[in-house]
Amino acid sequence: MKIVDAAWLPSEAWRPIGSRRVRVTGSGALVDTVRDEIRAAGGSLDPDGDLVFTLGGDPDRLGEEGFEVDGDVVRAAAPHGLLHGLFHMLRGGTAGTQKPALARRMLDHWDNVDVHPVMGQVERGYSGGSLFWQDGEPRRDLTRVRAYARLLAASGINAVALNNVNVHATEAHLLTDRLGEVAELAGVFRRYGIRVHLSVSFAAPVHHGLGTADPLEDEVREWWSKATANVYATIPDFGGYLVKADSEGQPGPFSYGRSHADGANLLAAALAQYGGVVHWRAFVYNHRQDWRDRSVDRARAAYDHFTPLDGTFADNVVLQVKHGPLDFQPREPVSPLITALPGTRLAVEFQVTQEYTGQQRHVCYLAPMWSELLRGTGGPAIAEHAAELVAVANTGDDPFWTGHPLAQANLYAFGRLAWDPAADPLAVLDEWITLTFPAAPGLLRDTLHEIMDGSWRSYERYTAPLGVGFMVRPGHHYGPDVDGYEYTPWGTYHFADRDGVGVDRTVATGTGFAGQYPSPWSQTYESPGSCPDELALFFHHLPYGHVLHSGRTVIQHIYDTHFAGAREAAAMREAWRRVSGVVALDRYERVAALLDEQVRSAEEWRDQVNAYFFRKSGVPDWEGRRIY
Amino acid sequence: MKIVDAAWLPSEAWRPIGSRRVRVTGSGALVDTVRDEIRAAGGSLDPDGDLVFTLGGDPDRLGEEGFEVDGDVVRAAAPHGLLHGLFHMLRGGTAGTQKPALARRMLDHWDNVDVHPVMGQVERGYSGGSLFWQDGEPRRDLTRVRAYARLLAASGINAVALNNVNVHATEAHLLTDRLGEVAELAGVFRRYGIRVHLSVSFAAPVHHGLGTADPLEDEVREWWSKATANVYATIPDFGGYLVKADSEGQPGPFSYGRSHADGANLLAAALAQYGGVVHWRAFVYNHRQDWRDRSVDRARAAYDHFTPLDGTFADNVVLQVKHGPLDFQPREPVSPLITALPGTRLAVEFQVTQEYTGQQRHVCYLAPMWSELLRGTGGPAIAEHAAELVAVANTGDDPFWTGHPLAQANLYAFGRLAWDPAADPLAVLDEWITLTFPAAPGLLRDTLHEIMDGSWRSYERYTAPLGVGFMVRPGHHYGPDVDGYEYTPWGTYHFADRDGVGVDRTVATGTGFAGQYPSPWSQTYESPGSCPDELALFFHHLPYGHVLHSGRTVIQHIYDTHFAGAREAAAMREAWRRVSGVVALDRYERVAALLDEQVRSAEEWRDQVNAYFFRKSGVPDWEGRRIY
Repeated sequence: MKIVDAAWLPSEAWRPIGSRRVRVTGSGALVDTVRDEIRAAGGSLDPDGDLVFTLGGDPDRLGEEGFEVDGDVVRAAAPHGLLHGLFHMLRGGTAGTQKPALARRMLDHWDNVDVHPVMGQVERGYSGGSLFWQDGEPRRDLTRVRAYARLLAASGINAVALNNVNVHATEAHLLTDRLGEVAELAGVFRRYGIRVHLSVSFAAPVHHGLGTADPLEDEVREWWSKATANVYATIPDFGGYLVKADSEGQPGPFSYGRSHADGANLLAAALAQYGGVVHWRAFVYNHRQDWRDRSVDRARAAYDHFTPLDGTFADNVVLQVKHGPLDFQPREPVSPLITALPGTRLAVEFQVTQEYTGQQRHVCYLAPMWSELLRGTGGPAIAEHAAELVAVANTGDDPFWTGHPLAQANLYAFGRLAWDPAADPLAVLDEWITLTFPAAPGLLRDTLHEIMDGSWRSYERYTAPLGVGFMVRPGHHYGPDVDGYEYTPWGTYHFADRDGVGVDRTVATGTGFAGQYPSPWSQTYESPGSCPDELALFFHHLPYGHVLHSGRTVIQHIYDTHFAGAREAAAMREAWRRVSGVVALDRYERVAALLDEQVRSAEEWRDQVNAYFFRKSGVPDWEGRRIY
Repeated sequence: MKIVDAAWLPSEAWRPIGSRRVRVTGSGALVDTVRDEIRAAGGSLDPDGDLVFTLGGDPDRLGEEGFEVDGDVVRAAAPHGLLHGLFHMLRGGTAGTQKPALARRMLDHWDNVDVHPVMGQVERGYSGGSLFWQDGEPRRDLTRVRAYARLLAASGINAVALNNVNVHATEAHLLTDRLGEVAELAGVFRRYGIRVHLSVSFAAPVHHGLGTADPLEDEVREWWSKATANVYATIPDFGGYLVKADSEGQPGPFSYGRSHADGANLLAAALAQYGGVVHWRAFVYNHRQDWRDRSVDRARAAYDHFTPLDGTFADNVVLQVKHGPLDFQPREPVSPLITALPGTRLAVEFQVTQEYTGQQRHVCYLAPMWSELLRGTGGPAIAEHAAELVAVANTGDDPFWTGHPLAQANLYAFGRLAWDPAADPLAVLDEWITLTFPAAPGLLRDTLHEIMDGSWRSYERYTAPLGVGFMVRPGHHYGPDVDGYEYTPWGTYHFADRDGVGVDRTVATGTGFAGQYPSPWSQTYESPGSCPDELALFFHHLPYGHVLHSGRTVIQHIYDTHFAGAREAAAMREAWRRVSGVVALDRYERVAALLDEQVRSAEEWRDQVNAYFFRKSGVPDWEGRRIY
């Protein structure tokens, strides 16, 4: 695999280390990695060096991964902290103490070993094939995986799940007779302080010949116990299992009349003695819903399923909850489940892969959205509840790593926000720009910032208005189809008619979902008078003439934002043209071609959504712009 | 392949021959087939037999395929006629002279050699895999193909194209290095008087190493000439080539700035000396249309492309035109192109495979529709213009041949109507019932007739109203999605808004399509006052309150027909329950399960279409029935 684009990989161009004499004390694999990275960045190792990386910091204060910078001395309590300190210095970091806010910062790969006939090799992947497997076999040359481990470590990631949560037949063998492939990858990631986890099928015992996967059966416990012992004999620092159970057709404990706690605790028991954890996904809902039955609300499902189980999960179970109650839409409220599990270890899941946000054909820098969710702008603050952050990866064997070269920023920013949820997402953007284009002139840096900083808001504007969501083509989820999911079993509706649009999720007259939030948010969302505009149609069915806080009617908001969003996409393309000749040609052309597609797609969104609502409402645009 | 269901295959149960002593005169392969069939039907061959099959009829009067029955003597001018006469007698046919109205009666198989990742092995096939290929190889056991050839011969078919008109890489080799497979199949079909044709790619010379497929280049002519010589050296009675060119991504003469006539005549020249023909499909339109541009009308495309070429095609070119201007919807007007080619040999194409008519999960007996089109009820009469009839086959390796056991009737009826377009489709239905259930009690025959006779009209009622069409899920085309194709590049729109629905195809204010018809049809369709209700929305954009000839408004017609259609589907299921115990269990259960799905699907159609138009129009059902 050719690596066209080294992204923010440490390199000689990284001035803060390049040409300096560096003293590193301590020993062990991760300290060796620190030494290797210093050499790679152009520094020379010297026992008399004046830039010092040393162990001996206070373990209580710094933990495994923290470090402190005092002048030219970087001190950590453990080698992993030293590695983070090194990347901090490579970024040109300043003095002071740093440690991660969240202990586990994880990427979930949705990679398959085989190429799945419908989903491809990487499910919801927009960056080519898997970094780990090719033609159904492990890659022989792991150079790229090694470079990837560096990328992740440099952004602060410390755990990866290697394979798709939808575990198909071939991939089920990674846990057993193909475990050697996992071990080899774990060896690569280990050098960068990253632990490897595996997605497993709850039905694995059945796939391997047992008559049942019932979590309360002794033979099932024994099967998991043996399988897990074998895993740890092979990979002593294995992270644990990731499970999607009883969801979208995946098997789970419901088949045996058992609860999710029964299921998760079964695996937790097998992992406990080795320090491993189970990530148990809370993405559970009825995907065979009858659209005619308005009493059922998919947004309620995760909360309804899991709050009764709070306090019943084993200590090494991590309940993994998507950030919103639906599924990674460009705008959702924080999932109320996140606020309702005081007795459960909680991981919140983001989606770095841009399934619903332009599929890495559109520029859509997501960190401002994540930051709002983490800090609690307009809803509960995820950072106050989550013990871990997890994200679905956006990488593949594409030469630019992420399909769209600018989509790398999302991967980087996820790692940085997981380290520090209070970080300013635009400062992180500038950090990424600087690291990725170290020798770039101001014009390029300014242009990149201008194109990317508001790109999530632009995407939101030209796609689904006011939090309504899911106006996408069914299946692949790219491009507009306003009614695409309206009459399907998936539970994602907008109920638009000639008078209005949106889902009444109030306690008073709707599905009651708003009541799942703690005060004051339940009251805030309950009334259109206090509900933020951005979520107006998520919580309320409103007439087209309803006046928003912005002073605009719902229908005029739809028209205005769609015209504005498409215009902003066109402006991004214009801006990029200014840097022709300043960026390497292959990257320039890749981005330019993708911006053409983004402009085309944004106009398609604009015209379809506007035409749909104009045909339904009959209300003309007050500026008289063209609606088809 | 197990043959559970012998359908209308000649068998001992066929009383008219069974146990009789039969004298057959003449010799040759087809006469041998006649003898074999008599034995298979339980008759004994006897030089003194009193039922006589003999050659010696008047060739001018009877042609190759005609025959006359005079008491116990069946006389033909050629062996092929004798075979038809035999099947006529096996059906219990009466005295008189019969000959086919159309010289070629052909089935097009859309079979691939390989299993296509999206389309499966049989494109738009709903009856399992291919009869001809398995796992990428020709089937070794051709017993089923032999039985299939008998089925087709017994219904009157005399030509088949073996492979998909979308010619993929593997299938391109059937013309060249895999020709042996075609020859073997041709040998099987030959015994039943059926000639074999092959779908070819216009780009075949390029696939085989030439730099061009330009029809005016000498090397291209030579390539086709050599390839064709090789085909006829191997299969002396080969039928010819079938070509989908410059359509939906298939290559064609447009790539070289040449016309369809240039393309078709190239292949015709190669085939002429051997008596072969080119079937050149007229299914050509822009499938990358901009839905925003209402001046383009896909319905116009075939006429606009091909009428200027009338008279320029070689004598052995057959222009193959779909029966309607769009694509096999449950209701379309006759394609005006069919009326506009006096100087061109014309084949009209039907679709026996039920792509848009329930995909062989719904009972939908299509012969009443074909009969209306052939005889010209409400439009030009196809039978007055077509020299040949062609249909896309609905068969596969399913034990019942056609997935839904009752879908066999469509295959049978197509053959019978191609032989005699004036035949009564309900008489043909009864003929099929009698042949397929020879020993059935009256209850079963009556029930089958009751379920099937009006099933096309029922399907039309619960799906797309008033000729509007294409309210199906994109891609697979099963189930409702009213806006599924509304904002796509495919050119199939209904333009529904809060005030009305339908496509203005008038000359006065619309796309002008109505003007492509000869008088009086152009005038009939031009005005809503004279346009038949069934086509009202095909030709006009009408307000929901527009009163139809039926006296109902458009919106009330939509509601009424959808409630009625779903009710009729439920009645079919009830009727079938009456014959439990009368039909073989496997067939009973297969049909019963499919009727469950039909009822479910019909209710889904009813509720989605009604909800869609209620939400848009705001007009309540005047009977106050439940709309969601």
